[in-house]
Amino acid sequence: MKSYTEYLWLNTKKHREIVYLTDKVEEIVKKSKIEEGFVLVSAMHITASVYINDNEEGLFQDMEEWLQRLCPEGPNYHHHASGETNGDAHLKNLLMGHQVIVPITKGKLDLGPWQSIFYYEFDGQRKKRVVVKAMGE
Amino acid sequence: MKSYTEYLWLNTKKHREIVYLTDKVEEIVKKSKIEEGFVLVSAMHITASVYINDNEEGLFQDMEEWLQRLCPEGPNYHHHASGETNGDAHLKNLLMGHQVIVPITKGKLDLGPWQSIFYYEFDGQRKKRVVVKAMGE
Amino acid sequence: MKSYTEYLWLNTKKHREIVYLTDKVEEIVKKSKIEEGFVLVSAMHITASVYINDNEEGLFQDMEEWLQRLCPEGPNYHHHASGETNGDAHLKNLLMGHQVIVPITKGKLDLGPWQSIFYYEFDGQRKKRVVVKAMGE
Repeated sequence: MKSYTEYLWLNTKKHREIVYLTDKVEEIVKKSKIEEGFVLVSAMHITASVYINDNEEGLFQDMEEWLQRLCPEGPNYHHHASGETNGDAHLKNLLMGHQVIVPITKGKLDLGPWQSIFYYEFDGQRKKRVVVKAMGE
Repeated sequence: MKSYTEYLWLNTKKHREIVYLTDKVEEIVKKSKIEEGFVLVSAMHITASVYINDNEEGLFQDMEEWLQRLCPEGPNYHHHASGETNGDAHLKNLLMGHQVIVPITKGKLDLGPWQSIFYYEFDGQRKKRVVVKAMGE
Repeated sequence: MKSYTEYLWLNTKKHREIVYLTDKVEEIVKKSKIEEGFVLVSAMHITASVYINDNEEGLFQDMEEWLQRLCPEGPNYHHHASGETNGDAHLKNLLMGHQVIVPITKGKLDLGPWQSIFYYEFDGQRKKRVVVKAMGE
């Protein structure tokens, strides 16, 4: 059994931003030399998501509007009594999830043709991390 | 360490449809001869989910109505500028998630008594795939 | 390759309740003697979640209100024709997810500084189980 771990640092320019990760995860899997196994891609934060979906600009806008509708930005969060202002970002993280597992088959990410891996920042403009851990043989 | 991979092909009769998968995943785990490990069940598409919940018809209706309420079908998606008509199906995928991990213990799926594995198609009537990958010993 | 499995029993005092799990998962990982791998923490029920987010009381209230808004409690569920009264709890489980994977690195849970593991009961006051399964070397 082999395992291999890397951390990706992100610091988005915008408060909310989507970052394409497939290439970086592919590279890490290549370095791991694992032929059969799993790779976990997981945000190490509670106000950001890692998800898999389509790499399409219109969809990014739809997601943004949808997240604002279901988890609206604003002052009305109990969490803000603690001095924070990012209550919405916590709910967005819970809605979208913070991690994906991608199977590694014959040394490659075993994704469908339209599946791409993304990081979705909900409270950015600061340094954040994603852990990428591969395990297999 | 062992690993074993199979792909399930699905082609639903209806546009949206729930398909019971527990039996098929159980069979694959049996073939894998893995006694202790994990099995990943993951939709290879961005408009379908794999989830675990109750095998109960009334709940299927509740889920359908809930998904239509939170991610309504309709023309008002930026994604449709790309020629697509399935914006809602992408959001439904994001809401429900596209994968589950089931522990394998003593050669069997380690599920609770009411837990069943399902595929939920949100944009069907075409061929789609689910990857089932087991890893362990 | 090693694997190690334990089951946590929970019986919440309230109908809905959040239970901190990080300590218990840490102990299990220690017992497993796994240095590099994954630990799966997964509710064995269809009306409870395991999730990762902030350990902050105000946020717990925000989550409660948010879940009641998106998956309201009440009589209007088809599922209730089967004699159940917990339709909302099933939807809350689907919204929040029922499992997380935590990487194990150098023998420890590889979590970000604000990430804690929680169990969220949506239909409690009865015995329920969470499976914790670690795999690695």
